[in-house]
Amino acid sequence: MSATTPAPRGERPGRIMSGEMAEQPAVLRRLLSEGAPRIREVAERIAARNPRFVLLTARGTSDNAALYAKYLLEILLGKPCGLTSMSTTTAYEARQDLTDCLVIAVSQSGGSPDLVASTRAAREAGAVTLAVTNNAGSPLAEVSEFHIDILAGPEKALPATKTYTAELLALYLLVDGLRGGNGAEAAKALPDLAKSILARQDEVRRLAARYRFAERMVITSRGYGYPTAKEAALKLMETSYIPALSYSGADLLHGPLAMVDNVSPVIAIVTDGRGGRALQPVLDRLKDRGADLVVFGPAPQVADASAGFVLPTEDVPEELQPILEILPLQMLAYEVTIARGQDPDAPRALAKVTETR
Amino acid sequence: MSATTPAPRGERPGRIMSGEMAEQPAVLRRLLSEGAPRIREVAERIAARNPRFVLLTARGTSDNAALYAKYLLEILLGKPCGLTSMSTTTAYEARQDLTDCLVIAVSQSGGSPDLVASTRAAREAGAVTLAVTNNAGSPLAEVSEFHIDILAGPEKALPATKTYTAELLALYLLVDGLRGGNGAEAAKALPDLAKSILARQDEVRRLAARYRFAERMVITSRGYGYPTAKEAALKLMETSYIPALSYSGADLLHGPLAMVDNVSPVIAIVTDGRGGRALQPVLDRLKDRGADLVVFGPAPQVADASAGFVLPTEDVPEELQPILEILPLQMLAYEVTIARGQDPDAPRALAKVTETR
Repeated sequence: MSATTPAPRGERPGRIMSGEMAEQPAVLRRLLSEGAPRIREVAERIAARNPRFVLLTARGTSDNAALYAKYLLEILLGKPCGLTSMSTTTAYEARQDLTDCLVIAVSQSGGSPDLVASTRAAREAGAVTLAVTNNAGSPLAEVSEFHIDILAGPEKALPATKTYTAELLALYLLVDGLRGGNGAEAAKALPDLAKSILARQDEVRRLAARYRFAERMVITSRGYGYPTAKEAALKLMETSYIPALSYSGADLLHGPLAMVDNVSPVIAIVTDGRGGRALQPVLDRLKDRGADLVVFGPAPQVADASAGFVLPTEDVPEELQPILEILPLQMLAYEVTIARGQDPDAPRALAKVTETR
Repeated sequence: MSATTPAPRGERPGRIMSGEMAEQPAVLRRLLSEGAPRIREVAERIAARNPRFVLLTARGTSDNAALYAKYLLEILLGKPCGLTSMSTTTAYEARQDLTDCLVIAVSQSGGSPDLVASTRAAREAGAVTLAVTNNAGSPLAEVSEFHIDILAGPEKALPATKTYTAELLALYLLVDGLRGGNGAEAAKALPDLAKSILARQDEVRRLAARYRFAERMVITSRGYGYPTAKEAALKLMETSYIPALSYSGADLLHGPLAMVDNVSPVIAIVTDGRGGRALQPVLDRLKDRGADLVVFGPAPQVADASAGFVLPTEDVPEELQPILEILPLQMLAYEVTIARGQDPDAPRALAKVTETR
């Protein structure tokens, strides 16, 4: 794919990224109406094979979606899971016995050669293989036994946004389908809630002002919010180039906390539920240290922080909240980048389809 | 455990950390002579149970050792593996079916409550459980069916060094034992090679000078060297507070590369083998971008970089090289911290035993 064209003189930079962010309510709606029946059918066929162990394979933004699926599979289905180290297959040619394993490969383009090679190897090793992509005609979809199309439409901006939330929802529908649930019903409020969040751009712009001169950031969460922390860090890095370090709240206490002080702002993603409650001691510790703490989460936690963004998640099951949580953080990455005089549509050195082997 | 005492006025700072780094050849030797027979016995008993999947549980430095074990298990044994998300058990109370699973918990102290709780839950869920710790009397060792003592002696410095290399060697001996190998024989050269690396402190001090004013660093590797990259980043952050971002070479190309330019120095760990060869295109790309690239690896790759440290690994199997590779990077973290006028023995805000729940 050719590089995207940055904004010509006079046009607002980042118009490609902002256009795709704005599509997210419609993409979620389409996936719930057109995609869900097909995903449910795939889930039923996979459930009939009764996989005992699940491996997830992805890179970049899709790897954060895969991590979200890992939480779903472990918590909702009680299945032991792992994220694969692709090089064990592609560089070391390890041959595993994957009988009883479900291997899920997640990729926007479905085109990365190492993902295709490792999925083909997994199928040969006896795994049930499933590709989750935005391109039903991609090589990854072809080598996999099953395929789920996230129906997000072409994504042209280099920082992935709508394909991330579409991957999350598709994976939720899959996992819920594996347990015979009615996920589309539980998720039906998401498109409208997403729209209400995306309308609050001025609020995010005010938050972004505090990071204009930041030289580093720490982003933390726990449980279901942890993939959001990782994806927010990736978004900030690939658009604004601010080194953004993401840690689960527990891991933050095991070393990197030494790096947090009054020059390292901290963003915490607080889910409304068990993950958010498990994060509370970490938030208290950060406040004791005088950290600049910005919370994306429920109103009480935002009120207790330096600043924040209240998420309308009080009636949303915790396992669905990540689909909404990432939205203001995508907007933050966009606004911080604009505030720093850069163009979110034109990150240095990146190509849309990354060909790692 | 009480906090360690930083250097009194007049004494060289970092004496606790440097003392423990210097013990590593002796610790490796002890593990090969006294520890190996017991590890082999544990490995035989576990192999007889024929686990089909392996889950690894750890935090901080030990999590990087667990990642190393994941590569060993996947490449040498062909076993599907996963690193656990502990909060699924401790915060969400997920109940999994872990029949046919081996769960390995790695921890210096064996005292972190969440590790103990999740290992107990894994045993109740049907897993074969193994604790790898530096404390045979620890709660973690007690709740696990099997235990391996890494025999590193008390570790007092907050940045873990000798327990990391001891965990790596213990895990290597375990995995090699699971396939019926003679790992102690293959590893016998390590203590002397470790000693020769630790004697090159002046070389590392010269390298450290270039990072005295660094505001961020990127550390990359691929395959067996990737856990080394992650551990080096953690060591640098918890001693010098420099934000050090670690990526597998493939992931670096999927986004964070935008952050690398002539103000973000890059350290690459190049193993002598397939992982190092798979990293070569990433090294070429970094050089094309004019990155300041420092290589820890074989002589030709060092000669082709901005600077580096030649590792004496030409006769060492690739899977054992990580035990040596981390040594100059521990020294680098130490020397950079000294160069910045800080005390490696007294990182802000950290306690030796981190009690996450």
